[in-house]
Order: sequence, then structure tokens, then C-alpha cells
Amino acid sequence: MTRPRRERAAAIADGAPLVSADPATVAWLTGVAVDIEWGPSPFSAAPVVVLSPGGDVTLVVSEDEAPAAGADVRALTFPGFALEDVDRPQALLELTLDAIGSDGPIVADLHALPGSLVAALGPGRLRDVRHALQDARAVKDPDEIDAIKAATEIADAGQAAARASLRPGADELSLWTETRAAMERVAQSRLPVLADFVTGERTAEVGGPPSGREVGEGDLLLVDLVPRVGSYWADSCATVALGGPPAAARSAHAAALGALEAAKASIRPGVTAGEVDRAAREVMETAGGYPHHTGHGLGATVHEAPRIVPGSAVRLAEGMVIALEPGAYGDDWGVRVEQVVVVTADGCDVLSGHDLAL
Amino acid sequence: MTRPRRERAAAIADGAPLVSADPATVAWLTGVAVDIEWGPSPFSAAPVVVLSPGGDVTLVVSEDEAPAAGADVRALTFPGFALEDVDRPQALLELTLDAIGSDGPIVADLHALPGSLVAALGPGRLRDVRHALQDARAVKDPDEIDAIKAATEIADAGQAAARASLRPGADELSLWTETRAAMERVAQSRLPVLADFVTGERTAEVGGPPSGREVGEGDLLLVDLVPRVGSYWADSCATVALGGPPAAARSAHAAALGALEAAKASIRPGVTAGEVDRAAREVMETAGGYPHHTGHGLGATVHEAPRIVPGSAVRLAEGMVIALEPGAYGDDWGVRVEQVVVVTADGCDVLSGHDLAL
Repeated sequence: MTRPRRERAAAIADGAPLVSADPATVAWLTGVAVDIEWGPSPFSAAPVVVLSPGGDVTLVVSEDEAPAAGADVRALTFPGFALEDVDRPQALLELTLDAIGSDGPIVADLHALPGSLVAALGPGRLRDVRHALQDARAVKDPDEIDAIKAATEIADAGQAAARASLRPGADELSLWTETRAAMERVAQSRLPVLADFVTGERTAEVGGPPSGREVGEGDLLLVDLVPRVGSYWADSCATVALGGPPAAARSAHAAALGALEAAKASIRPGVTAGEVDRAAREVMETAGGYPHHTGHGLGATVHEAPRIVPGSAVRLAEGMVIALEPGAYGDDWGVRVEQVVVVTADGCDVLSGHDLAL
Repeated sequence: MTRPRRERAAAIADGAPLVSADPATVAWLTGVAVDIEWGPSPFSAAPVVVLSPGGDVTLVVSEDEAPAAGADVRALTFPGFALEDVDRPQALLELTLDAIGSDGPIVADLHALPGSLVAALGPGRLRDVRHALQDARAVKDPDEIDAIKAATEIADAGQAAARASLRPGADELSLWTETRAAMERVAQSRLPVLADFVTGERTAEVGGPPSGREVGEGDLLLVDLVPRVGSYWADSCATVALGGPPAAARSAHAAALGALEAAKASIRPGVTAGEVDRAAREVMETAGGYPHHTGHGLGATVHEAPRIVPGSAVRLAEGMVIALEPGAYGDDWGVRVEQVVVVTADGCDVLSGHDLAL
């Protein structure tokens, strides 16, 4: 068993304060997932987390978002959405400097840190640990796996609704509305959702958002649903046929299911991501293959380490959560199947529960 | 008439390159509105715009997003969502340094700049012009007003759908689904939407997302719809009664309509935002008033300069686009109405076309 995530983060910091404004790292250390669907407001400021060398977590955050922080998080707040005229980015900066306290070295995800904070601290004090944080986030604690599993159940409900919605004459946007609504009904709240939702010849394009295209007999629906529930994301894909799909699509779909099984069978701690990629990709070679990754980690972001790509020497570890999504794409058709798995001591457990049948 | 936005931005830069990673400034200068609904991926990087002292605009951007850039924008691209393993934040950093070219002073929105870029450039070269850019963005060019008007028509369609959806026994999430779908049907695409969607006693809370609450006879629906269409946002609010609302809500709603008219009547170039705020707030005093701003600018963000708040000395100027939203909130009811206006040479034009009746 690995140590809990705060201990792993503290090990990266190696005695220095760790500072991050990456929304994924903020969610990982504090439980606060910021609103993302409407972009930043110039009258607010995204939160910053500070992990002290002693292991204490401070979140500098709008008072509107502070209640979402875990009980073991100290919140330093600036005014939320209110009448008063406050320079919130400046307030965030000053409170963050207070939270850091020391004038010694600091470790940070430098790319995601506000430029104003880097200017105020002085770049000389900062050591970039972006890659180490990405790697640390790849291994999930049990509560994170539970959160991803809960999100996956919502994705399952969306997959069932998408499959049930498919009918001639309806357009993609209508089917999408029914799919999203099913997820939000189960979650009892609005959800951010990344999705591919394409039918017919659009499936050849690998993905894309729903359009006004009308579904006809013989069409495929390729539906890839990525909802965020709480602070964590799920991922899932299925391809559904309305009536008889092209023979090439049918055999490619069978191959994709085989590739998914081969990838899962190859997973255990110590195996490289490149080996898992090869296990899936070899099965798909006769069906034409796929131009994208075989899979990726997911957690507080939709797409994180480890990437399951050719040649990757990254070794899988117990607790990693990985979405596997082999597919094949012809001139006017495309198929893909996807499940999320968690790496266990001797293999992997499948979190996804949706129907993968064509 | 003011000068076009790139000339105003160049005037702020005053002979130095201007660099910004604020998504609003990027959209404002290049036409590229980044995907926002699913948050940043650690395997990608948000675009950065560089305005040269000569007025040329360069966008450092993923090759996936580059096609959205205007014809007069030079795109420097790094790989998009692809199989290969590329450190995109690092590629963005290096291309941005290339785009800046010079080793002299630089002006920037320092808060929104990637910390890695500030570290690479050295803070000493950077002058923060965040507030000047906010002020410059407040005045819209004609094409921006057209874009906001187009977005407002989508919001109008959503308001009509929300009003039509209201019925006993349905829950807020179902009404919300119908409302969002109506906007996406007219736009023929998915849309990011910020919304308040509350009914019954929840209207007293000023706003909030839709929940599983079931609508009953006598309930109010407070619906505030803020869709992004292309690069620009609309804003709109109405309050709709199912059957007979509380008498206090009815009179407060009439007062809110009066406050909205008073605010609009007060608008002309040179008037302060504080005077517009007072015009609306005075009308609402007898109805109990409202704890929030009277209004705000909108454009490439949902909420920007000028804020219409008490005491603001900011002077309105032709071309500013302002959402006005007086309301009143009791113990178990709330009402609000909102329209978007554009400041003209001698008053204002209303962009909103939705029904404001209770």
C-alpha cells in the first residue's frame, strides 16, 4: 500500500511548502472542485492550496466555495459574489503569501501558478514539481476510487439512456439532451460533462459534440460520456447500432471488445503502460487500428497520468485508475468501447457497468 | 466612436508587447474561445495571445483550437489531442517566448499569466495592466455587440422555454433540461450555460442551480440564463408565477420592472455606474431592496466591467454592454428581472427580447 496522498505530496515537497493553483491538485488536497462550466470571472479568483511542511493544508478561496473544503482544511477566505467592490485576485495573492509564511524555498506546479504570485515570491524561490505531482495523483487513495466509482455509476446511467434514446428521425442534440438529463436525474444536480456524441458517418471522425444530424436506419451512435460528480470524473464509451451496421464496423467492434479484454488481462502492478497499449493495439491491427491512445488515467481531471500509449515505460501501480478505449475507424464508420479499471495487487477491477454490445 | 479594440489594447501596451493568457482577453483579441466545460487537462495548455507593438496578433495554441482563430491572427501551434507524448505546457512556454521575441519590457495581465512564463521572462520585465485591459474590454466593438445580440436571442429562446415548461408536479431539473435543450436546439450545438433555476421558497435564496424540487401551484420560478454562443455571453432573467403568487411578490415584481425602467432611463454616456445603480435601487426601497449589484458588463466573460454598484464613479461610455437585474427577496419568495442593454450616443438600446411578465 502506498501512503495517503497528503503524505506523498509532502514527500515531493521535501520540507518546503507546496503551493498549487492547478484545479486538479486543489481538488486532490482539499476536496474543493471549482465551478468550471462558465469560465473565470474577472471579479473572482480561483483557489490556491498550500501544504505546509508539517502536513497542514490551507485553502485560499472565495467564501462562496469555502464550505466545500474538507474538515481538515484551513480556509483563508476573500469575499464571494457580493455587492462590494473587492480586488479578489489581489486578495488571493496577499492571503496566499500569508499562508506560505516562510521566505525559504517553495515547490509548486509552476505552469498553473498565477503569474502575480510568481512575481511576488520571486522565481528564484520556486522549484517546479509539476511532473511529480502528476505522477503522485495517478495513484488513487481508497476514497478517490469510491468517488470515481460513484461517478462511473452516473456515466452508466447516461450510457443506458443514450442506448434507449436511439431512434430514426431524432437528431443527435435531442438524444444528447435525453442522455445528459438521465445523468443529472440520477445525480439530482447539474453536472459538467465532456462527451463525444456522433452518429452515422460522423463516427468516422473519432468523436465530436452532438449536432443537428438526424439519425437514420443502419446508423451507428458513438457515445463517450465523461461526467464530473463531486470532485471526480468518470469516463465511458459504447457504440450502438440502429438496425444492421456495416459488416466492417461489426467485425471491428468485435475486435475492439477483444482488445479491451486483452488490455485488461495485461494489467498488473509493474507492467508498463506501453505493454498494456501493445496488448490492445495488436488485437486491433487487422481491423485497421486507432490513431489515439489506448487509454489514460482519470481522477480530478478527465485525462491524467498514466497515458497508455506505445512505448511508454511508465510502470502501473496498485491504485491507479485507468480508462481503456480501443476503437477502429473506417471511411464512414467508427466504433469504440471503453471501461474504467482500477489496478489491484494482482490485476485490475472493472468499475464500469454499462452495456458494451453493438 | 472609440478606436477598435486592438488599437485600444496597443495603446495600453504603449510600445511594448502585450501578453495575456486570460481566456477573455484571448477571445477578445483572437476570436478563440476555449472549451471551458470540462476544465484544463494536464496534457494540454490554454492558449496565450501576444500583441506586438506593431499591432500584429499571435496566438500560441493547440493545433486543435487554431482553426477558430480569426484570419488576421498568426497561430503558433503545439500538438493537440493526439497519440504522441508532448509536454504541451512546455511547448506553449517556448512558443510564447518566441512570439514575444524582444528582451525589453512586456505588459500583461499578470494574475492570469502562467507562472512558468513569468519565471522564464523574469518579473522585472513585466508591467501589470489587468485593470486597464478590463476597462478596455468594457467598451464593445460593433462585431462584439452583434455577437452578444446573437447570444441574447438564444437566451430569449431559453426564457420562452422555461416559461412554457412551468407546470405542477415537474421538478426543477426537468424544467431545466427543457430550457437548456431549447437553447441548444436554436444554436444547433451544445452551449456552456450559467444559470439560476430555482422555484418556490428557493427563490428567496437569490439563485442557485436546479434541484429535484417539485413545482406546486402558487410557486414562482426564478430563471437567470447566461449562455455562451461562440465567444460571447448573454444574460437574462425573468420570474414566472404558476397560479397566484404571494401578494408581496406581486408588488415587488412590479417594482422591479419599474426599477429596470428607471435604470435604463438613467443611462447615457458620462453618467456614472453609481448613478444608474441609485436610479434602480431607489425604486426598490419600498419593496425591501436587493443585496446584490444592480448590474454588470458582459462580453467575453459572464461578468465584467463596469459593475453597476452603489457609489461607483466609473463613467459609462458608448458601446458598453450592461446587464441590469434589480430584484427583491422575502422570507419565502424572490423576484428578479434582467435585460441587457448597449450604451448608445444618447441613451441605450435593449438587446433582450424575452417576456418579463410575472
